[in-house]
Amino acid sequence: MHTYHVKELLDKGKEAISQEVTVQGWVRSFRSNRFIALNDGSTIKNIQVVVDFENFDADLLKKINTAASLKIQGEVIESQGSGQEIEVVAKEIIILGEANPDDVQETILQPKQHSLEKLREQAHLRFRTNTFASVMRVRNTLMFGVHKYFNEKGFVYVNTPIITGSDAEGAGEMFTVTNFDLDKTPKNEEGKVDYEQDFFGKHTNLTVSGQLEGEVAAMGLGKIYTFGPTFRAENSNTTRHLAEFWMIEPEMAFYDLDMNMDLAEDLLKYVIKYAVDNCADDLQFLAERFDKEQTQKPQNERSELTLMERLDYILNNEFIRLTYTEAIDILKNSNHNKKGKFTYKIEDWGADLQSEHERYLVEKHFKTPVILFDYPTEIKSFYMRLNDDGKTVRAMDILFPGIGEIVGGSQREERLDILDQKIERFGIDKEELWWYRDTRRFGTVPHSGFGLGLERLVLFVTGMGNIRDVIPFPRTPKNAEF
Amino acid sequence: MHTYHVKELLDKGKEAISQEVTVQGWVRSFRSNRFIALNDGSTIKNIQVVVDFENFDADLLKKINTAASLKIQGEVIESQGSGQEIEVVAKEIIILGEANPDDVQETILQPKQHSLEKLREQAHLRFRTNTFASVMRVRNTLMFGVHKYFNEKGFVYVNTPIITGSDAEGAGEMFTVTNFDLDKTPKNEEGKVDYEQDFFGKHTNLTVSGQLEGEVAAMGLGKIYTFGPTFRAENSNTTRHLAEFWMIEPEMAFYDLDMNMDLAEDLLKYVIKYAVDNCADDLQFLAERFDKEQTQKPQNERSELTLMERLDYILNNEFIRLTYTEAIDILKNSNHNKKGKFTYKIEDWGADLQSEHERYLVEKHFKTPVILFDYPTEIKSFYMRLNDDGKTVRAMDILFPGIGEIVGGSQREERLDILDQKIERFGIDKEELWWYRDTRRFGTVPHSGFGLGLERLVLFVTGMGNIRDVIPFPRTPKNAEF
Repeated sequence: MHTYHVKELLDKGKEAISQEVTVQGWVRSFRSNRFIALNDGSTIKNIQVVVDFENFDADLLKKINTAASLKIQGEVIESQGSGQEIEVVAKEIIILGEANPDDVQETILQPKQHSLEKLREQAHLRFRTNTFASVMRVRNTLMFGVHKYFNEKGFVYVNTPIITGSDAEGAGEMFTVTNFDLDKTPKNEEGKVDYEQDFFGKHTNLTVSGQLEGEVAAMGLGKIYTFGPTFRAENSNTTRHLAEFWMIEPEMAFYDLDMNMDLAEDLLKYVIKYAVDNCADDLQFLAERFDKEQTQKPQNERSELTLMERLDYILNNEFIRLTYTEAIDILKNSNHNKKGKFTYKIEDWGADLQSEHERYLVEKHFKTPVILFDYPTEIKSFYMRLNDDGKTVRAMDILFPGIGEIVGGSQREERLDILDQKIERFGIDKEELWWYRDTRRFGTVPHSGFGLGLERLVLFVTGMGNIRDVIPFPRTPKNAEF
Repeated sequence: MHTYHVKELLDKGKEAISQEVTVQGWVRSFRSNRFIALNDGSTIKNIQVVVDFENFDADLLKKINTAASLKIQGEVIESQGSGQEIEVVAKEIIILGEANPDDVQETILQPKQHSLEKLREQAHLRFRTNTFASVMRVRNTLMFGVHKYFNEKGFVYVNTPIITGSDAEGAGEMFTVTNFDLDKTPKNEEGKVDYEQDFFGKHTNLTVSGQLEGEVAAMGLGKIYTFGPTFRAENSNTTRHLAEFWMIEPEMAFYDLDMNMDLAEDLLKYVIKYAVDNCADDLQFLAERFDKEQTQKPQNERSELTLMERLDYILNNEFIRLTYTEAIDILKNSNHNKKGKFTYKIEDWGADLQSEHERYLVEKHFKTPVILFDYPTEIKSFYMRLNDDGKTVRAMDILFPGIGEIVGGSQREERLDILDQKIERFGIDKEELWWYRDTRRFGTVPHSGFGLGLERLVLFVTGMGNIRDVIPFPRTPKNAEF
């Protein structure tokens, strides 16, 4: 007798009729002492198991409660009810694990709607809920899509270090990694902590980006990408920030900024299409959830598009590309700006764009994803390539509706003399970047790269509103449970 | 004019003859002022560029030094020499980046053999060497093979947390993660460090394993795997240990130990075959390197098999499965043991197997990969399922020739009462594992999983001898450079 995952069996459909099968899973519901909805995590759909109570012991039937786990042997028949093609008539039922209804009442496993916040408190159990399991399967598909895309394009997946002695990128506050007992840190002659005695012989941090190491790898392997966890010790309690999140960072030798923008747009379209093609059931469920949520919002906060329309829109339209300078003109001359509706009014060229400005451009003005490029030198990182105008750099950000910045990248400064000027101007320790500078000394080449935040991508595709609901175990200020 | 990666162009072969093409890359050598060997990282092979010096400026030719980067436009012709099918006759040469020969002399980019140790000191440049670039491409292919395998089998890739407040697994010394300025750690009333004021409100570590969180995810999603960095703060300066390394950890609901062993063996064969099929050029190069290295060893230390034979052997033979008890019998009665050739003589059942014993079984006795299972309870972790004999657990380790343990796994203890006894006996804080125990309270199911160390797999497939040579930026005691 073949043991099927629920998805396998449902995919077989009517072909499976008359087969004797084994299915296993958790009880989602047991209706009328007759219909078990069984789910094993392989799909959002349940397999319906029909129980003729006369054939089973009453004690056994009493244990078929929500959240209990069962092994069922039975025959596949054409479903008598609507909603499913096939169902299984139980011949044998084995209770693998009970679930005491009184205990279940205290958890999110009880069959009623729960707030996402409540689900987060029981992050260990939320894998068994429809919403979170769907999000996890979509996340999985997006991740595999990313690997598949880069593999097909000849990129080498490179694991840049998580623990780093380098803090030159200056992308934000970093966590310290240490092997010291903090109650007994050794001190040096000056009375300061003596990091020479620490595990790595110096002060080390958790990485905020694999970019600099990724560039170095691309200078030998040609086209590489990193895909791993990155960290920010920022005390931000928002729906958009995590202390630990996953980043995808490709770096390509012989790529200029245009090629970089082409690649980023192509990647985003590829992986979104890959999810649409491979997560139909989960996305349908999440789309219904999203669309229903919209109807509960005030008219002016509602998304104009349904979730599936939003995804289709990305796939079928070219992203608008415009310079920072053009964007500032649009923003400055907008009624929104003139009427003082921005918290930060746009006055002059050189202003750093806030999230409100980015979203205005994407959601109100263009109503489509936008790639902004050629930003002022002063508001971007030291490693971005200086334009001939001497005041802008070859940076680019991709802005998505509802999300804001989803990709940030640039052509990298490959000219050692200009890089050194920037390093000095930005007050960065040149010595510490000896290895990064070396790649500009020995056969430097034009090259580019970008960073794509995985969780922001998952937010966009699933329509979820809080970044804590798209990662298994969110790490935020005062929260490292599980 | 089409721009080709070197691999693309070489793969086209004679089909490309007469085409005008652009190729870019780094100079590996410039022979007789006429033949440039150009490499762009896409393959171990170089494209030969033929330069007629009469057509180019002498100043330009002087800049074509080893490690310089070039953009070449030219025509593809059938190669006049041996060793390659096609070559490019240069019509235009653009020097993208120079490389001063005097400076290059001080680096590993100079064209001569370097020790692997020397390469490690210049880890930022070793991506441009044949050996390391090949290892990185093989590593990439193995990683993609892992993702592809699990994707095809319906596993969900789950990112378990890197920063964790849980240290219950007890797999080794852990690094502390903190946001404190260590020179000014706040103290509580008892004069101890007040972790409540730290970023996460408690003491946090870098994960040593995603297993416990992975189990929790499998209890909802069915079959999951993690694939990410893990950490050990162990002061081990060996060729087998890293402080930061990558682990693959699948966890499967409804899997017993036999299914677990089947999966692990199947996975290993799949990814090794995937590398053999997709990295032919790199593996050929690495095999020559390995086989040459063997000839320089004393007779009794040499591998009996060439690298490719070793890989083929894995693919074409079933792993031998035997219990710990059977293994102890073999070891105890071996001449090796009787003659006192083990550092740790095997006397009694219950002894923990050392690397020397594992390697004896694999390399001397069976001469094939071995899966040992049903280990004594006392030498294995608390979460492993107790056998009916009351003294062994459903653990399994896969041992590979030349590597030792490459996989460690078990069926997990799904019975809450027995799990609780083990937690108590192992002196673990039960409260801290409330979420792990919860999955045994609500519909517990038989389940299994294992861990596969990526770097050990790469070592085995590439034939490299030191784990620091199979990861881009190794993290070891007193070393967190780059």
